[in-house]
Amino acid sequence: MLIVMHRSATQKQIGAVMAAVEKMGLKASSIPGSERTAIGVLGNKGYVDDLSIRDFPGVKDIIHVSKPYKMVSRDFHPRPTIIRIIGVEIGEGRSPVTIAGPCAVENKDQILRTARAVKAAGAELLRGGAFKPRTGPYTFQGLKEEGLKLLALARQETGLPIVSEVMTSENVELVAGYVDVLQVGARNMQNFDLLREVGRIRKPVLLKRGLSATIEEFLAAAEYILAEGNSQVILCERGIRTFETATRNSLDLSVVPIIKELSHLPIIVDPSHATGKRNLVPPMAKAALVAGAHGIMVEVHPEPEKALSDGPQSLTIPGFQKLMQETKKIKDFLGY
Amino acid sequence: MLIVMHRSATQKQIGAVMAAVEKMGLKASSIPGSERTAIGVLGNKGYVDDLSIRDFPGVKDIIHVSKPYKMVSRDFHPRPTIIRIIGVEIGEGRSPVTIAGPCAVENKDQILRTARAVKAAGAELLRGGAFKPRTGPYTFQGLKEEGLKLLALARQETGLPIVSEVMTSENVELVAGYVDVLQVGARNMQNFDLLREVGRIRKPVLLKRGLSATIEEFLAAAEYILAEGNSQVILCERGIRTFETATRNSLDLSVVPIIKELSHLPIIVDPSHATGKRNLVPPMAKAALVAGAHGIMVEVHPEPEKALSDGPQSLTIPGFQKLMQETKKIKDFLGY
Amino acid sequence: MLIVMHRSATQKQIGAVMAAVEKMGLKASSIPGSERTAIGVLGNKGYVDDLSIRDFPGVKDIIHVSKPYKMVSRDFHPRPTIIRIIGVEIGEGRSPVTIAGPCAVENKDQILRTARAVKAAGAELLRGGAFKPRTGPYTFQGLKEEGLKLLALARQETGLPIVSEVMTSENVELVAGYVDVLQVGARNMQNFDLLREVGRIRKPVLLKRGLSATIEEFLAAAEYILAEGNSQVILCERGIRTFETATRNSLDLSVVPIIKELSHLPIIVDPSHATGKRNLVPPMAKAALVAGAHGIMVEVHPEPEKALSDGPQSLTIPGFQKLMQETKKIKDFLGY
Amino acid sequence: MLIVMHRSATQKQIGAVMAAVEKMGLKASSIPGSERTAIGVLGNKGYVDDLSIRDFPGVKDIIHVSKPYKMVSRDFHPRPTIIRIIGVEIGEGRSPVTIAGPCAVENKDQILRTARAVKAAGAELLRGGAFKPRTGPYTFQGLKEEGLKLLALARQETGLPIVSEVMTSENVELVAGYVDVLQVGARNMQNFDLLREVGRIRKPVLLKRGLSATIEEFLAAAEYILAEGNSQVILCERGIRTFETATRNSLDLSVVPIIKELSHLPIIVDPSHATGKRNLVPPMAKAALVAGAHGIMVEVHPEPEKALSDGPQSLTIPGFQKLMQETKKIKDFLGY
Repeated sequence: MLIVMHRSATQKQIGAVMAAVEKMGLKASSIPGSERTAIGVLGNKGYVDDLSIRDFPGVKDIIHVSKPYKMVSRDFHPRPTIIRIIGVEIGEGRSPVTIAGPCAVENKDQILRTARAVKAAGAELLRGGAFKPRTGPYTFQGLKEEGLKLLALARQETGLPIVSEVMTSENVELVAGYVDVLQVGARNMQNFDLLREVGRIRKPVLLKRGLSATIEEFLAAAEYILAEGNSQVILCERGIRTFETATRNSLDLSVVPIIKELSHLPIIVDPSHATGKRNLVPPMAKAALVAGAHGIMVEVHPEPEKALSDGPQSLTIPGFQKLMQETKKIKDFLGY
Repeated sequence: MLIVMHRSATQKQIGAVMAAVEKMGLKASSIPGSERTAIGVLGNKGYVDDLSIRDFPGVKDIIHVSKPYKMVSRDFHPRPTIIRIIGVEIGEGRSPVTIAGPCAVENKDQILRTARAVKAAGAELLRGGAFKPRTGPYTFQGLKEEGLKLLALARQETGLPIVSEVMTSENVELVAGYVDVLQVGARNMQNFDLLREVGRIRKPVLLKRGLSATIEEFLAAAEYILAEGNSQVILCERGIRTFETATRNSLDLSVVPIIKELSHLPIIVDPSHATGKRNLVPPMAKAALVAGAHGIMVEVHPEPEKALSDGPQSLTIPGFQKLMQETKKIKDFLGY
Repeated sequence: MLIVMHRSATQKQIGAVMAAVEKMGLKASSIPGSERTAIGVLGNKGYVDDLSIRDFPGVKDIIHVSKPYKMVSRDFHPRPTIIRIIGVEIGEGRSPVTIAGPCAVENKDQILRTARAVKAAGAELLRGGAFKPRTGPYTFQGLKEEGLKLLALARQETGLPIVSEVMTSENVELVAGYVDVLQVGARNMQNFDLLREVGRIRKPVLLKRGLSATIEEFLAAAEYILAEGNSQVILCERGIRTFETATRNSLDLSVVPIIKELSHLPIIVDPSHATGKRNLVPPMAKAALVAGAHGIMVEVHPEPEKALSDGPQSLTIPGFQKLMQETKKIKDFLGY
Repeated sequence: MLIVMHRSATQKQIGAVMAAVEKMGLKASSIPGSERTAIGVLGNKGYVDDLSIRDFPGVKDIIHVSKPYKMVSRDFHPRPTIIRIIGVEIGEGRSPVTIAGPCAVENKDQILRTARAVKAAGAELLRGGAFKPRTGPYTFQGLKEEGLKLLALARQETGLPIVSEVMTSENVELVAGYVDVLQVGARNMQNFDLLREVGRIRKPVLLKRGLSATIEEFLAAAEYILAEGNSQVILCERGIRTFETATRNSLDLSVVPIIKELSHLPIIVDPSHATGKRNLVPPMAKAALVAGAHGIMVEVHPEPEKALSDGPQSLTIPGFQKLMQETKKIKDFLGY
């Protein structure tokens, strides 16, 4: 940590800051410059809360070198984390996986048809929302536990492990009783209670990046889960909110190589929510794999025109089959 | 709702869309143009989910005229809602209120000192966080129920009604047992379970705008609360996330007149979180009042340099006293 | 400047960086920490280009303490700059001014009617576009020199100094021949050739903030003008581009107190372009003045419904008269 | 175009709007709904300026179906445009090209070494800045005409066509006298005078997307060039400005398939400026090609640690060679 003093800071003020730092058990080192003095803070292990220093007279700025996360960092855990789910492995060095299925579970026929089709086309996991976060209260909110039962039935029929969203800490146990991977959605990325609760179970968690979360905040959210003892976290980029309105969100593919550098956790990409448009899903899915993503998550619906949510961004079954043929070639090309 | 067809759409495609609309119990009206045809949808009461239509062949775009909220809208409730809290009134035509206090309740001395000081200076409500949302898991997370007890003690001493954040639906009852106004924070603006739960109690709710929430999403979030039967909602602008890094967030003061036009709910402004810098709080607080805000919420700490959170944006007690003298003049000027 | 080394940086790498810094004529000071070493760079006068250092092996990050601007900074010029234009003064301690007029000069009648009306209502300067930047090539692009002549005529009739935009360095001389203040528009904030050219004339320049310009970039753009010898620069906040679509741009009023702290140049606010909606102009104009702006710039049109550009955000003449009555009260209240 | 009337609009107001539309030579068609009336506007060829209508009493909103560009649109020019530059072809169905070279031309040795190396590695065009846009006035601004001469020399030695930025309309002729492709930079994307001027020459133009330009504005900027008679425009995505600070900009790869759908012009990607970090360039370059880009533009410097600008994002020569081996495989994979 570096404390930058104002040009007009007095020696007394500098001394007071240094004394305060040392009182925290850290070492303060004065760095006099031609225009101003800075104070280097040494000896801290990880993140130091700067609040007791920031308001000292004469302090201009505080620059953190350390980060608000630790266990998710590659510095502290250099080897990649591999998530294992009933025979599927996700992470560095493994063949990228495909998670596919409808935005929402709507009925038995819809989820079974989709499950069989995505399994046949080569998907490794089945997704489907039972609890749905919706902007307004008057739209379809999901089948809830009934939806989880249908997902479990689809798993039984196809053998595909299932991924479904949990929206509240109260439901973590319920959802974990049915699914293989619990998803924490973008709107809940900073629902810290929920993060802690999924940190206490022993099932993998798929954590989506918040709509306006920085990479640092994304990793700090994952840290909440790891800090509770669950290190099976899959990160998922799903587009960020920007000024551009041509797409639902702006897919920020650069996070893939950045996350791989900063963290040992797997990072996958959801091009369906990122773009919001069916025809943009295949090019972005393929681009994600080439950028190094450990998997993709795509929405598939047997009849998107009748979908109760996210129809415009859902692939049809033939569309998904075509994508899987293409991603198979990409995986071959990448050597998996 | 208007359905815009592709230039190349066939008469058969147009017919199919119109038939589908009518099957929904609505009226379809063809609008042939020189370049393309559009289909007007009439007869809908409120928002129509367009998902069953968007994927019909030949459909280019769907334009909604209606909104995802209804009960929060001035169209449906033209008279302003006035929130009444133990003798304080918040809303159109009432003198703007000041909610003041520390970011977090830290100890008995701190909250009592602050409560007495802000009361003496003219604040109408006391704020203080007992459950604190923090980016990383290793920083101070609040005193929890102990903090609520201290707030209740401060209310007993000063008579100030208290506002405190509830972060999870499980805690709504607990928090409501202590406080006069439940705050739903920016990170939880789309925690729909929490919104529904605070919709079921009979206490006012202060709903903060999410970091990247549009005004439409903000109002739709409030609609969740009203839809459950609780119409005592105070909206609060607290800055949005933009590319600018000179401030913690970018205060979007224009929402004040916009919300007043669109909704009957009161709208207040939090310049502390919006700017993140103490010296920017007074000019932005005063600007908010002149822009028409029904109140301001500011962070005050007796010793900001020792604050466990948000010290840099907290006013000192003398700083708050000065602000209150200035806002008193503004209120006089505005005729309150 | 502080150079942060990687944890794994070797002593040799640290030595090489320090040698390179000293070769630049600066002093390098090693700051060994428990986790990594940092190198303080001393002796630089102003901004040091870090490019020759950033790529040295072992360098993790470089943190600048200095800024890309100097002459616009209050550090180097503590007293406020007052811009004087034919009897009008703009800047700290002066009564805030109002610049009013149509987006574009359309014809003699329109500009004369507007000029007389805004003069009568109390405006101090007349604005009007003769060269218009437009998103697409098929919309009205301004009357060009003919527009400047009409503005000059309006000045002759009313005595109001005139402000008009110059879009290209080639036209600086032409525009300067007619107007009292040259405006550089938001889209040209980083048209460096144009900035240099208006830096060479001896007339005031009104520099608008770019749509996605940080405050640092805004001040650095002004520095281009001052660096050429013209210190008569008026800064103008006009809204930034964000995800919010309810307004044309998001008015970032916090820049007013920030700019006043960082720079000696006057800062005014344009609520018309910021909001894009007529009914939002008065509350935002008043809020700007209370936030400390040295003036406002508003669009006024005698018949906004017939305006060739920006009609929806233009005040009518009665609307402007009402605003001026209100801002007069605000100025009285502020003690001007 | 659709004109949406207020719920409270009177028949007289509706009639007045319809009359105004017909006076513009268009056909107005009333669409009465259960809540409000809309008016369809037919007969317009391309974009209609709505300004004369938006302010009529009773008008709530105007929805455009048409776009502010025409000649760049695939609707009007379905076949892809292929840009031909001394034996190189850029566009749909052609093998993606690589434009490589230093950010800025610094001296003869640097540009010749780079030119030979990128030629040997497989680049098809050489880039190099002679006129450099820089945030602040005190950093290296380019060698200007001397830089262009060195680029021409490099072309003579290697046969590589050259691309260089032109920053002002005054210099278009000068730059066009040396280079094969004129680049218009991101900061000048809405420098309309410059756009018109490069529209008047008969050389290809590489137009970079502005930092906060929507896709619609990007295409409208290209329209300025085509409208002057120059249809040889190469579009270039180079990252947009968002809240994320981990990268210099946020690369918005989705524009590649979107632009290919909307326009016949080629679209290439610059991962160097988008990410600002050398190690992110290869994954993003490869992702861009798989997403369908017609080419990539990357910065290469023989000694990035000594580069006068953009060193951190420049590939070394061995780094570029490695990238070219990888992109060669990608191109084989894609069937080129």
